[in-house]
Amino acid sequence: MSLLFTPLAIRSMTLPNRIVLPAMVTRLSGEDGVVNDDIRARYVRYAKGGAGLIVVEAMAVHQSKSGPLLRISSDDFAPGLADLATRCHDAGPGKVVPQIIHFLKISRSGWRQTVDMLSAQEIDDIVDAYGTAAARARACGFDGVELHMAHAYTLSSFLSRLNPRRDAYGGTLENRLRLPVRVIERVRASVGGDFPVGVRFLGEECIRNGYTPVEAGPIAVRLARAGADYISLSAGGKFEDARHIPGEPLYPYTGYSGDRCMPGSNYPDGANLYIPEAVRACVRAAGLETPIVAAGKIGSLELAEKVIERGQGDLIGMARALLADPDLPKKWQRGREEAVVRCVYGNVCKALDENFRRVDCTLWPKKLGQAPESEDTVPPEWPASGAELTAEYKDGRVLVRWKSATDNEQMYGYQVFRAEGADAPLTHFASTRSASSRFEDPRVIGGETYSYALRPYDLAGNRGAMTPRVTVVVPIEHVPAADPVHLQIAKDPGAVEGCAVVTGR
Amino acid sequence: MSLLFTPLAIRSMTLPNRIVLPAMVTRLSGEDGVVNDDIRARYVRYAKGGAGLIVVEAMAVHQSKSGPLLRISSDDFAPGLADLATRCHDAGPGKVVPQIIHFLKISRSGWRQTVDMLSAQEIDDIVDAYGTAAARARACGFDGVELHMAHAYTLSSFLSRLNPRRDAYGGTLENRLRLPVRVIERVRASVGGDFPVGVRFLGEECIRNGYTPVEAGPIAVRLARAGADYISLSAGGKFEDARHIPGEPLYPYTGYSGDRCMPGSNYPDGANLYIPEAVRACVRAAGLETPIVAAGKIGSLELAEKVIERGQGDLIGMARALLADPDLPKKWQRGREEAVVRCVYGNVCKALDENFRRVDCTLWPKKLGQAPESEDTVPPEWPASGAELTAEYKDGRVLVRWKSATDNEQMYGYQVFRAEGADAPLTHFASTRSASSRFEDPRVIGGETYSYALRPYDLAGNRGAMTPRVTVVVPIEHVPAADPVHLQIAKDPGAVEGCAVVTGR
Repeated sequence: MSLLFTPLAIRSMTLPNRIVLPAMVTRLSGEDGVVNDDIRARYVRYAKGGAGLIVVEAMAVHQSKSGPLLRISSDDFAPGLADLATRCHDAGPGKVVPQIIHFLKISRSGWRQTVDMLSAQEIDDIVDAYGTAAARARACGFDGVELHMAHAYTLSSFLSRLNPRRDAYGGTLENRLRLPVRVIERVRASVGGDFPVGVRFLGEECIRNGYTPVEAGPIAVRLARAGADYISLSAGGKFEDARHIPGEPLYPYTGYSGDRCMPGSNYPDGANLYIPEAVRACVRAAGLETPIVAAGKIGSLELAEKVIERGQGDLIGMARALLADPDLPKKWQRGREEAVVRCVYGNVCKALDENFRRVDCTLWPKKLGQAPESEDTVPPEWPASGAELTAEYKDGRVLVRWKSATDNEQMYGYQVFRAEGADAPLTHFASTRSASSRFEDPRVIGGETYSYALRPYDLAGNRGAMTPRVTVVVPIEHVPAADPVHLQIAKDPGAVEGCAVVTGR
Repeated sequence: MSLLFTPLAIRSMTLPNRIVLPAMVTRLSGEDGVVNDDIRARYVRYAKGGAGLIVVEAMAVHQSKSGPLLRISSDDFAPGLADLATRCHDAGPGKVVPQIIHFLKISRSGWRQTVDMLSAQEIDDIVDAYGTAAARARACGFDGVELHMAHAYTLSSFLSRLNPRRDAYGGTLENRLRLPVRVIERVRASVGGDFPVGVRFLGEECIRNGYTPVEAGPIAVRLARAGADYISLSAGGKFEDARHIPGEPLYPYTGYSGDRCMPGSNYPDGANLYIPEAVRACVRAAGLETPIVAAGKIGSLELAEKVIERGQGDLIGMARALLADPDLPKKWQRGREEAVVRCVYGNVCKALDENFRRVDCTLWPKKLGQAPESEDTVPPEWPASGAELTAEYKDGRVLVRWKSATDNEQMYGYQVFRAEGADAPLTHFASTRSASSRFEDPRVIGGETYSYALRPYDLAGNRGAMTPRVTVVVPIEHVPAADPVHLQIAKDPGAVEGCAVVTGR
């Protein structure tokens, strides 16, 4: 029996399964903060796929200059939000909650407002803004509300161990908790006792002198006692170690803490799981049953089930995996895991956000702007003569080529599997779009042997047969070419194929 | 059957068990680099305790100015080293290998020499120096040699993803590996085929754009193929994110990567285990049986056994736990885990090193300068009237007091257990020396309830009865006092009691 597809009740809402879409920036809204067609299409698509809980990307509780960002700061935004909630409910079984956020000011000089610059009145205003926005979320027909206390934003900066205030709102853990607790209490008073209120905060700051899971445990206990109905844990994403690009505002995912926030292909699967594991243990030891959302490169059914089985989390957060294939929950539930279009954690989506571009998945068919939809079940086929897969070393990289596969409906892409060695097990290394019938791999070491194999997949994710493996020896005198993937990202992230190793320099 | 006490053969040496003392700075040697009485006493003490492999602290392969540091850079140092090897062999069953290191220059201005400043000749000299030093290690009677390729030192800086060279020694992974591979090959040629050569390197750099376990896997494979007989994995400890204190040379353990290198009480046990797990899987997939040393806050028998059982490592590295109680291996093997004087990971030892002081364990009896020795088996006893444990809130902290326990031989200290809440399970929170009959806990949150209990222990680590728990409610209007532990460390790390929360600010 699948733990993942066991419903979970959180106050007045019952999630049909344990799969959560955490809030993920899309840059699809305009500067006006109003829900538009692109936003609607994106979230309706997620709803169709069957995720148990859909957290709509952060929307501001206050009026403050920013780039494209949804807003929930006045009743002007309510009709669009109410319509979004209705459409998502009509499209699928999942529950829908907006994430609401307060952030401080930043400028292109690299300057940023810090929490010690806030007056007592400004702090009270934050509490008011959260309370009003949460009531508005309820009035709009959402199933609950999530308070953003993670990453580089206001409430997270209060919780931070680097909170520089020396009054009742900073210094000790108790003081750092004061504003977040006030916000939860106000939100609870404002939405009533039955409406689910979640909190997303950092289980580890991943910066020098930042807090770690051992302190996140008591923080979670306190937030739960104050009224949080679920705790969603993230990591890192701080301003303190961000790299400042002259002329650009600080982007809090450019430092090591940003790497840890969205662990890419250079991290093992589930690398952050020690965080929810420790926090959940502390919450349970305090006698609380608050569900914990674990996240961070959990992309396979096997790992997701294990997380719940081992008690590392009650809910599984997956942003990038659901961006790549919103139908993942439906496919997992139907026993069709093989038909999932697997995220390769190349973090092209992260690079798009960092470059202030619309956040799409690089695996999607070009120009579609959305994950494709298909209920087809017939897999692609190789030509009668086979894929004729070859791999040769050329110009400082391995060049893999093949004959195109065909599909009854439409081809989508190829999964590239690689192994280090002639006999080592193949693992999913990259994916490439169907228009390609070649793949270049610059991430090789002179003197080593590499094996490659390929599987084609169609729009519905149906995967064709694995090719036989081909092997290539990289000459010891290998002179590597400049890494084209990295250069492409710098120039035009949207042009990059889904490669597992795009984080290379 | 204990996996931990299963012998392991590595070329000509057979380790009696899987417990490894990784190289740990002591600051016990003089500036002359010669083995002295303090060094001898420290390592003989470890040998007596029964660790399977004792890695003697890093000793320089070259002549270069530094603080107190052992040297193996000329035959002048050989008699002292040979004597050290003999004494350790006489004292216990463990094998003994020196860690040999090359480092670059640093100055008090914060300037540091980087690998791109090295000429081709200087690189050749590094290869020569390692080869000669390794042969000397063999001649001195050590059982093997360990090459230091971790943290902020020369070979690690070549392996680093931030290696700035643009010639054959930098840029791609292959180029970054070139010098480390040359060093291993030279060492192998110089010591012969039967002599064990280990390598310690970083499984994750824990800095922005640094490499991660996914790249450490292929690095380990390459180093093993070049001749490394075991791979010992560390994390972090880099110059790149170190904090520069004006007038002091950079110390590479002051940044976030330093926190990760020696995860303190603010990290869950075994927080770094995803690193050796991923690297070992890659090494095994390549068909290699090279043993992997896992490390990072593994201090309990249960966790150590699990690590081996789960395939996260073949050997368990424990520096701080063995510093606290060198007899840990012997006690574990005899089924006397309860008698281990448990490290609280307060990292006072790390702070001592950072302040250029002799590295002792703060749990040791004052002025002993060494872990005590006793074979006594009679535990301490509370007075007939009981411990009379009390906990009260006073002056911004919880003050815990009790009546002293007594012992047939000599009291050593008290373990302080704490729980957040009146019923939550108690966990080991701090230890305090026997002269104290009070403990101050400033790490509390207003409005929360805390429970405390105590166990006394004697010189042999025999633990007396746990007191009944006492409970205290911290008033909601709690105004925390300045954190005395942090202030004490800044002023005089040696004066600090062994507290699990010394990393607080």
